Amino acid sequence: MKTAAFGEIMARISPEGYYRFAQTDRFQITYGGAEANALISLANFGAETVYVTKLPENDMAEAALRQLKAHGVDVSHVVRGGERMGLYFCERGAAQRSSKVIYDRKYAAVAAAKPSEYDWEAAFEGVNWFHWTGITPALSDDCAAALLDACRTAKAHGVTISCDLNFRSNLWSAEKAGKVMTQLMEYVDVCIANEEHCGLLFGVKPDADVTDREEGYKQVARKLSLQFNIPTVVITVRSGKNSSDNSVSAMLYKDNEYFTSRTYDVHIVERIGGGDALAGGLIYALQNGWCRRDVIEFAVAAEALKHSVEGDYNEVSVAEVQTLASGAGAGRVQR
Amino acid sequence: MKTAAFGEIMARISPEGYYRFAQTDRFQITYGGAEANALISLANFGAETVYVTKLPENDMAEAALRQLKAHGVDVSHVVRGGERMGLYFCERGAAQRSSKVIYDRKYAAVAAAKPSEYDWEAAFEGVNWFHWTGITPALSDDCAAALLDACRTAKAHGVTISCDLNFRSNLWSAEKAGKVMTQLMEYVDVCIANEEHCGLLFGVKPDADVTDREEGYKQVARKLSLQFNIPTVVITVRSGKNSSDNSVSAMLYKDNEYFTSRTYDVHIVERIGGGDALAGGLIYALQNGWCRRDVIEFAVAAEALKHSVEGDYNEVSVAEVQTLASGAGAGRVQR
Amino acid sequence: MKTAAFGEIMARISPEGYYRFAQTDRFQITYGGAEANALISLANFGAETVYVTKLPENDMAEAALRQLKAHGVDVSHVVRGGERMGLYFCERGAAQRSSKVIYDRKYAAVAAAKPSEYDWEAAFEGVNWFHWTGITPALSDDCAAALLDACRTAKAHGVTISCDLNFRSNLWSAEKAGKVMTQLMEYVDVCIANEEHCGLLFGVKPDADVTDREEGYKQVARKLSLQFNIPTVVITVRSGKNSSDNSVSAMLYKDNEYFTSRTYDVHIVERIGGGDALAGGLIYALQNGWCRRDVIEFAVAAEALKHSVEGDYNEVSVAEVQTLASGAGAGRVQR
Amino acid sequence: MKTAAFGEIMARISPEGYYRFAQTDRFQITYGGAEANALISLANFGAETVYVTKLPENDMAEAALRQLKAHGVDVSHVVRGGERMGLYFCERGAAQRSSKVIYDRKYAAVAAAKPSEYDWEAAFEGVNWFHWTGITPALSDDCAAALLDACRTAKAHGVTISCDLNFRSNLWSAEKAGKVMTQLMEYVDVCIANEEHCGLLFGVKPDADVTDREEGYKQVARKLSLQFNIPTVVITVRSGKNSSDNSVSAMLYKDNEYFTSRTYDVHIVERIGGGDALAGGLIYALQNGWCRRDVIEFAVAAEALKHSVEGDYNEVSVAEVQTLASGAGAGRVQR
Amino acid sequence: MKTAAFGEIMARISPEGYYRFAQTDRFQITYGGAEANALISLANFGAETVYVTKLPENDMAEAALRQLKAHGVDVSHVVRGGERMGLYFCERGAAQRSSKVIYDRKYAAVAAAKPSEYDWEAAFEGVNWFHWTGITPALSDDCAAALLDACRTAKAHGVTISCDLNFRSNLWSAEKAGKVMTQLMEYVDVCIANEEHCGLLFGVKPDADVTDREEGYKQVARKLSLQFNIPTVVITVRSGKNSSDNSVSAMLYKDNEYFTSRTYDVHIVERIGGGDALAGGLIYALQNGWCRRDVIEFAVAAEALKHSVEGDYNEVSVAEVQTLASGAGAGRVQR
Amino acid sequence: MKTAAFGEIMARISPEGYYRFAQTDRFQITYGGAEANALISLANFGAETVYVTKLPENDMAEAALRQLKAHGVDVSHVVRGGERMGLYFCERGAAQRSSKVIYDRKYAAVAAAKPSEYDWEAAFEGVNWFHWTGITPALSDDCAAALLDACRTAKAHGVTISCDLNFRSNLWSAEKAGKVMTQLMEYVDVCIANEEHCGLLFGVKPDADVTDREEGYKQVARKLSLQFNIPTVVITVRSGKNSSDNSVSAMLYKDNEYFTSRTYDVHIVERIGGGDALAGGLIYALQNGWCRRDVIEFAVAAEALKHSVEGDYNEVSVAEVQTLASGAGAGRVQR
Repeated sequence: MKTAAFGEIMARISPEGYYRFAQTDRFQITYGGAEANALISLANFGAETVYVTKLPENDMAEAALRQLKAHGVDVSHVVRGGERMGLYFCERGAAQRSSKVIYDRKYAAVAAAKPSEYDWEAAFEGVNWFHWTGITPALSDDCAAALLDACRTAKAHGVTISCDLNFRSNLWSAEKAGKVMTQLMEYVDVCIANEEHCGLLFGVKPDADVTDREEGYKQVARKLSLQFNIPTVVITVRSGKNSSDNSVSAMLYKDNEYFTSRTYDVHIVERIGGGDALAGGLIYALQNGWCRRDVIEFAVAAEALKHSVEGDYNEVSVAEVQTLASGAGAGRVQR
Repeated sequence: MKTAAFGEIMARISPEGYYRFAQTDRFQITYGGAEANALISLANFGAETVYVTKLPENDMAEAALRQLKAHGVDVSHVVRGGERMGLYFCERGAAQRSSKVIYDRKYAAVAAAKPSEYDWEAAFEGVNWFHWTGITPALSDDCAAALLDACRTAKAHGVTISCDLNFRSNLWSAEKAGKVMTQLMEYVDVCIANEEHCGLLFGVKPDADVTDREEGYKQVARKLSLQFNIPTVVITVRSGKNSSDNSVSAMLYKDNEYFTSRTYDVHIVERIGGGDALAGGLIYALQNGWCRRDVIEFAVAAEALKHSVEGDYNEVSVAEVQTLASGAGAGRVQR
Repeated sequence: MKTAAFGEIMARISPEGYYRFAQTDRFQITYGGAEANALISLANFGAETVYVTKLPENDMAEAALRQLKAHGVDVSHVVRGGERMGLYFCERGAAQRSSKVIYDRKYAAVAAAKPSEYDWEAAFEGVNWFHWTGITPALSDDCAAALLDACRTAKAHGVTISCDLNFRSNLWSAEKAGKVMTQLMEYVDVCIANEEHCGLLFGVKPDADVTDREEGYKQVARKLSLQFNIPTVVITVRSGKNSSDNSVSAMLYKDNEYFTSRTYDVHIVERIGGGDALAGGLIYALQNGWCRRDVIEFAVAAEALKHSVEGDYNEVSVAEVQTLASGAGAGRVQR
Repeated sequence: MKTAAFGEIMARISPEGYYRFAQTDRFQITYGGAEANALISLANFGAETVYVTKLPENDMAEAALRQLKAHGVDVSHVVRGGERMGLYFCERGAAQRSSKVIYDRKYAAVAAAKPSEYDWEAAFEGVNWFHWTGITPALSDDCAAALLDACRTAKAHGVTISCDLNFRSNLWSAEKAGKVMTQLMEYVDVCIANEEHCGLLFGVKPDADVTDREEGYKQVARKLSLQFNIPTVVITVRSGKNSSDNSVSAMLYKDNEYFTSRTYDVHIVERIGGGDALAGGLIYALQNGWCRRDVIEFAVAAEALKHSVEGDYNEVSVAEVQTLASGAGAGRVQR
Repeated sequence: MKTAAFGEIMARISPEGYYRFAQTDRFQITYGGAEANALISLANFGAETVYVTKLPENDMAEAALRQLKAHGVDVSHVVRGGERMGLYFCERGAAQRSSKVIYDRKYAAVAAAKPSEYDWEAAFEGVNWFHWTGITPALSDDCAAALLDACRTAKAHGVTISCDLNFRSNLWSAEKAGKVMTQLMEYVDVCIANEEHCGLLFGVKPDADVTDREEGYKQVARKLSLQFNIPTVVITVRSGKNSSDNSVSAMLYKDNEYFTSRTYDVHIVERIGGGDALAGGLIYALQNGWCRRDVIEFAVAAEALKHSVEGDYNEVSVAEVQTLASGAGAGRVQR
Repeated sequence: MKTAAFGEIMARISPEGYYRFAQTDRFQITYGGAEANALISLANFGAETVYVTKLPENDMAEAALRQLKAHGVDVSHVVRGGERMGLYFCERGAAQRSSKVIYDRKYAAVAAAKPSEYDWEAAFEGVNWFHWTGITPALSDDCAAALLDACRTAKAHGVTISCDLNFRSNLWSAEKAGKVMTQLMEYVDVCIANEEHCGLLFGVKPDADVTDREEGYKQVARKLSLQFNIPTVVITVRSGKNSSDNSVSAMLYKDNEYFTSRTYDVHIVERIGGGDALAGGLIYALQNGWCRRDVIEFAVAAEALKHSVEGDYNEVSVAEVQTLASGAGAGRVQR
C-alpha cells in the first residue's frame, strides 16, 4: 500500500520550553503541516508514502525536505519554486494559558502555485490511498482547484480518498469552506471530522432534542455519511480542561455500526499533531484490514501517544501503539 | 492612571530546569522583586508606571533596568550608586520537593540608601496610585524610613496606596515587622494579606470558635479593615499539596461586603510571582472602577495565569486574563 | 558507620528533555548504577562510603570517578583497566509513552574482570555494611564469583550485608538468576525485593487464595525471610498509571512484625533511581538504629523525593527526607 | 540632541553557532535593521532617539518593540497594523565559508504602508538629526515616497540628515536605485558610502588612471560631495580575506580635507551590523562637535568593536569606543 | 553515476563546545564514518549513492540511518542485526590542545558480520563507482574478507574503485595493514594517500636524497602508481601548527603528470571529515570528467570548506565549492 | 609531596559564549580563585593537595566544595559559616573587546573570618609546600593576619612557601599592598611576579638605562631575590594585542642563573586562570626536582594549554603538558 498526500508544510518556529514569544531569543524550528504529519506517521509505521506540495528553492525548504526524506517519504514530486515558504510561530501553552499560534503562511509558494504545476498522474503512480485535509483548499483558490484535480485523478485510478475536515476559521469563512468542501466531499471515502465542524460547514447537527453526547456523535456521523455518500466516518472528541491535560477519544461509523474507542487522559508534552496522528493511525489500520474496533482503538491510541512526543510528527512504532491500544500502561521502564 | 512602586529588584539566579544548585553549571539570570513584578503586570495591561529603587552603577543593574524599560516602566527616578545589587539563588521545586531560595541581598544599594536620596515629590509627579509590600521596610531601617516618607508624600498628593503585607521571616522578626508595619498601615487604602500574616504581625485572627475557613477569612478581613481603617482588604488563599500543584483563590472585603473568587487548580510552571500578579491585577481592576466581583475574579485569574508563565513577571494581556476570568478553558489552541 | 558497595557504574546517555532517540542530537551524559546510586544517597546523608568496581583507563571513566569523588565516595579501591565502560542510552517517557533503555554494557571492564583482581580485605577495611544488587551477579559469571568472594569476606568481618534483588530479565534468565542468587542469599541480612521478583527467582508467592494485596506482601516477606534466614525484608510497591505519575510505598518485615509506609503519589521528574534511593534511605535509617516505622517511612520518603530530582542520584539531605517523612507538604517556597 | 530614523526592523532567525540552515533545529531570533541598529548604537552612547516604522499587531512585533524600548528608543511613533513582519534567516560564515542570508521581507507591513500613514511632523518633534539608509526606499515605492516626505519635513525643520547608501542588489536594480536615490540625495548632509556603491548607483568613480586605492577613495568622496552638494562624506573600506577575519577603516571628507582612520584587523564574532555601528558612532561624534580626526577614529573604532559583539546592535559604551580609538589594546582583563 | 561505499558508521559523542570530556554533561551525538562521510558529500553534490554496512536493530542505529536517508543516500542494502553499534567519543581541540578521540567500536555489528551476510550483486546494481577506505579492512578479518568480495564483484561489473588509505594505528599494526591492503590494492583505480602512510604500509618513500617536499610527493605518487598499477593517485598534504589552524593542499598524479592544488589556510570549526570531504570532491569531479587541474582544485576546496562546517559531513553545494576553487573569498555576506 | 593553599574561592557567573552582561539570561556558574585554581592544577597532575578557606553553610558553597573534591582536593580543613560567598560576574572578551569582571566579593565569609578560626597546625599536617597569592591578604586585614599565621606555621614545619604576587588594584592600593606584602615576603621561597607589580609594590625596577626587555626582566628577578632573600623568582610575561590572541612566556631566576622559556602564541578559549596554571605547573615541576630549564618550560606550557581549556581550572595531564613543552604541535587528532 502506498499513500499520497497534498498540502502545505511550514517551518514551525517555537520559543524554547514554556517561554512566551517576547520572553526569549531561543527558538526551535521544525517543519510540519497536517497532511505531512499524517504521512510521516504512516511512514513511521512502515508504509510507503509520497508527498506533494510546492516549496521555494532555498535552504529552509531544503531542511523541510530533509525531514520528510529522513522518515522515508518520497519527495520526488514536490514542485520547486516560488517566493517563500509558509511559517508559523507557535507558543506552547501550560495549565490555564492556551497555546498560541501566529500564522505567516500567506504568499507561500504552495498557495501561489497554479494547478497546472502539479503532475497528478505521475505523483499517483503506484498509489492506493490519497489523504488531504480541509486546510489545503483553504490556502487559496488555486490550491482548491489543484486539490480537485488530484481527487479526480485519484478517483479515476481507484485510489481510496480520506479527508480530515480540519476547518480553520482564520483561513476562510465557514460559508466559503462549506461551498468548496461540499464539492470535494463527493470524492471522499473516509472522513474524519468533529461535531462542531460538521455543523459549521455543512449544517450537519444532532437532532435538536438530543442531550446525550454520544448519541449526538452518532447522529452526526450517520447524517454526514448519508449526505455525501461517505462509507466511513470518524468523529473525533477532545475535551480539555486546560493546556496541560486533555481527554481524547473517537467513534467510527460504518455500515450503520458505531464503534467508540476508550478515552485517554493525556498529559500534553506537545499539543500540535494529535489529529494528524489519529489520521495516520486510522489510515494504517484501515489499510491493514483490521476489524473496526481495532481500527478505531489503534487510531486513538496513536493520537494519545502523539501528545507525549515533541514536534509535529508521531514518532512511534506500530508495536508501541498496539501496546497502548491493548490496555498496557506505561509505568514501567522499557529495557 | 499612573502607578508608582518602591522596593528592591534583585538578580534571580536559577539552575536550569529542575536541577538542584550543585547539580549544574547552567543558570538563568532574570530580575525581579515583589513591587517591580506587580508594576510590570500593570505595564503589561497597558498602564503607566514608575519604579523607584536604588541600584549600583554596573552592567548587571543595567540589565535589570533594561527589563523594566522593555516593559515600558519609567525608571528615570531610580537612584544610582552604592556597592552591590541584591541577588537570590532560586531552585525550582517539583512534586514532593520544595522550591528553595538562598538570599544574598544584604548590603544591597537599596538597603544601604539613605531616605534623603529619594526625591518623592519628583517621583510622584502625575502619579495616582502607590504600591509597596512588606518586604521594602524589612530591608533596613533606612528603607522603612524612606517608605514612610513616600507614603506621607503620596498621601499629601491624594495618591491611593496599596500594600501587600508579604511578611518574610528571614528578613525580620514578626515582632519588629508588627511595629514598623503598624506605623505604615495608617496610609494604606488597599491591603492584600493572608490570614497567617495578619495574625503574626497584628494579632488579627478569626474568633477562637470559628471552624469554617471562609468565615475565618471574612473575620480577618473585617478586623484588619477596622483596626487600621483600611477601606479595601483582600485575603489571599493558597493551598499546595506539592510543588507542582497549588490551588489559589482570594476574597475581597469592602463596605461590609465579601466577594470570594473561584478557585483555580494551577499546575505550576513557575512558583514565584503569583502574589505579585494578583496585586497587579487587583490594582488594574480597581483603577478601572470595575464591580467588586469582576475585580477579585480578574485579580485571581491573573494570579492563576502567572503560574503558567516563566520568570517573575506576569507576561499576559488584559484580554487573556479576562478570557480566563470569564470561565473559558485553555484546552484549545489560540490561532 | 562505613558502607561498601560493588557493582557497575555506567555512562548514561539521555536525549534532552522529552525527545526520542532519533529526534535530537543533544544528549546528556551522567553516570550511574544501582549500587553507586545507593551509595551516593548515603554519602549525601553524611555517611562514609567506599565503592568497588573496575573501570577502564580513559577520560569517560575518569568523569564517572569525579562524580563519585565529588559526593565524597572513596574510590581508591576501584580497579583500573580493561577495554570499555558500560553505557546505556535512556529515553525519558511521558504520559502514555514508556521510558526506554538501550543497554550497551556487554564487554565492559567490570563484566570482564577476574575475581582475583579485587582485594576485598583491603576494600572492607573499616567497613560495617556491604550493599549489592542482583544486577552485579547478572553481569557475568566472573562478577558473580567476585561478589561471592566479597560476601564471604564481609561475613568473616562481621559486616552487615544488604541486597536489592533487582532482577533484570535482559541480563539473565529467571532460572539462572534463581540459582546464582540462592547461593548469595545466605549472606544477606537485609533484603529489598518486590513481589514479582520473589516469585520469578525463588518461587516465593502469596498463598493461592490471598486476594488482599497487602496480605500478599506480608506473606511474601515472611516466606522470603524464612527461606533464606534473612532477618529484615522490605517489599517495595510501585504502581504507575503512566510514565508521569507513579505511586510508591513499601513494607518492612522484621521479627514477625510488619510496618507499611504511607503511599506517595509522585509526579516523575526522573524515573531512574527510585529503588536505589529507597535502598540508600533504608540503609541510613537502619544504621542509625531508628524505630522500624521511622526506618520504612524514611526509606520511602527518600524514594519519593528522588523522583523529583534529575539524574540517577538522590541529591537530598537527611533534613529534606525527614520533613517529607514527617508529613509536611512541599507547597511553600523554602526561603 | 535627538535623532530620528525610519526603516524596517526584521526578525533575524539564525542557526545556533556555526550550523548551516538544514543542520540544526535550534535558532536564535533577534531583531534588527540598518536604521534601528544605528539608532540603538546612539542610544547606547546615551543619546535621545526615536524610531519610525510600521509593524503588525502581533507578539513577534511586540518583541521587536521591547528590544527598542529596552535600549531607550522612543517607539511611540511606530505605526501598527498590516499583515506581517519582515524576516531574514541568517547563517554565520566561518573561514572560507561565507555568511548567508535568506530574506523573507516582501509583503511586510512597512513595505506595504502608505506614505500617509506616517505623521512626520509629530515624529520629528524635538528632533535634530534624521538618519536613513538606502534599504528603506528599496523596500517599495511607497517606502520611497514616505522617505521623501520625511526628508522634506526634516529639511523644513532644519534637521540634519545622514544617509548610508547601503545598496542591496537583491531588493532593487542599480538603475532604479540610482534614480530614486538621486532624488533623495539633495536632502543629505552626511553621506556614508563605499566606493563600489558610488559607482553602481551614481557613476561616481575614481579617475581611470588612479592606481592608489586611497587616492581613489578621495576622488570618490570629493566627486560625490560635489555632485549632490553634500558637505560631509565618509568612505568606508572593508577587506575580508575570509569570513572570520576582516580589516576595516574609513575616510572622512569635509571642506576639501581628508582624514583616514587607522585600520583594524577584526576577528569576527558577528558579521552583521558593522556599518550600522559606524553610522551610529559617526553621528554621535559629529553631534558632539569633535574634531574631524576624532570623529572618524571614533566611528571606525565603534565598527571594529561591533564585530566582537553578538547580535545586530553595538552594545558598547562611549568609554569603550574611546579606549579603543585612543590606541589601547584589549589584552588585559578589565576588572 | 551512482556510487557505493562500504564501511562503518558510528555514533560520535562530543562534549559541547570546547569542553573536555570530564568537564560537562552536555554532549552532541552525530553519526559518521569515513566512507559514509564521503558518500554524503557526494549526495550533497547531487549524486546518487548507496551505503552498505551492518547496524543493530535499535533506535540509535535508526537515527544514523535517518541521517543517511535525509541526505538521499540509499540504505536499503544495510544489513540489520548484531549486538551493538560502534561509538566514538570526540573532544574538540583548540590552539595548543589536540583533539582527542576515544574509540568504543570493538564488537560492533559491522566488525562481527560474516562476509556472507552482504549481497554485493544486489548492492552494486546500477553502481558505477565503489569507494572504501583503509579503516574498513582494519575492523576485523571478516570485514577485510567482505571488502575483498565487494572489490571482486565491483571489478567484475566494471565499477571504478577508489580507496583512501586511511591507516589507523590504533586498529591494526602497519605490518598487518600492509599485508591486507596489498591484496586489496590490485582492485584500486584511484588511490588517496599521504606520504607517511605510503611509507608505513608499503615502504613507498621518496628517494633518500630528496629534500624538496613537493618532489617527494611526486615520487611517492609515481611509485605507488607503479607498484600497484593504480592509474590515479592523490597525495594529500596537511600541516597544522595547532588545533585551530591548519593548511591543506593535495597533488594529483595521472599519466605521468602532476597537478598541485593551491594551499588553503583553514581556521578549524571542525577537524573531523576533511579527508572524507576531499574524497567526496575528488570522486565527484572525476565522475564529471573535468580536467585534472579542476579536479584537484575542486577536491581541495571541498576539504577546506569542510573545516568550516560542524559535524562529520561536508554540508556544501557544488556551487559553493566552485566559488572557493575559483579563488573568490568569503569576506562578503551572501545575500 | 602534599601542597596546601589558602585563599578565596568564588562563584564565577559568566554570560554564555560571547554575550555581554545585559544581552542574555543564560549564564554559567563555575567556581574559582587563584589559589584553588593552582591547587587543582596540581591535583590534575596527580599531586596531593589541601585547601583552606571559609565558606558559608549553603548549597552554592557546597557546589564549590564538590568541584574541589571531584578533583581530589582535601577540603576537610575548610571552615564553614559566615554570611555569604564571594561572587564575580565575568564577561568574555573577543578581538578588540576586553574581558570584563564585576566583583561582588565584599562581605564574603573568608574576608570576614577571624584568624583564630583556622587551625594551621592541623591543616599543615603532612604538608610540604604552601602556596598563596597576593589576593588573599588583600581581602581584609583579618585575611592578611591569618595568612601571616599560616606562613609562620608553615615555616616552623619546614614547609616550602610559594607566592604569586597577583596585585589587584581594585582590592587595595599599591601602597598598602607594598606594606603588607613586604612583611609576608620574608617567608617566601618561590616568588612569581610580573615586572609591573614588582615596581608598583616594592619599587623593584630595571635600571633606568635598560632598553632590552629581557635584560629588564633579569634585573627585576635578581633585585627581587636579593631584596627579600627569595631563592627562586619567576617573572611572567604576557603580551596581548587583543582579547583573542596573547603571547606568553616566563623566565626563571635561581642561583644567579636565568632560564627563559619559549614563547607561545595562544588563541584564547578562556582568559582566566593562565597565571594560576603557570603556578601549578611550576610547583609540580619544582617538587619533582627537574632541571631548571624543564621546570620553566613545563610551567609555561601548562599556562599556554590552560588558555585552550574552558573554566578556571587547568584540566590537563602531565603527559599533555610535557608533549607541548617538548615542542610537539597539536595539529593531529589524538586517537
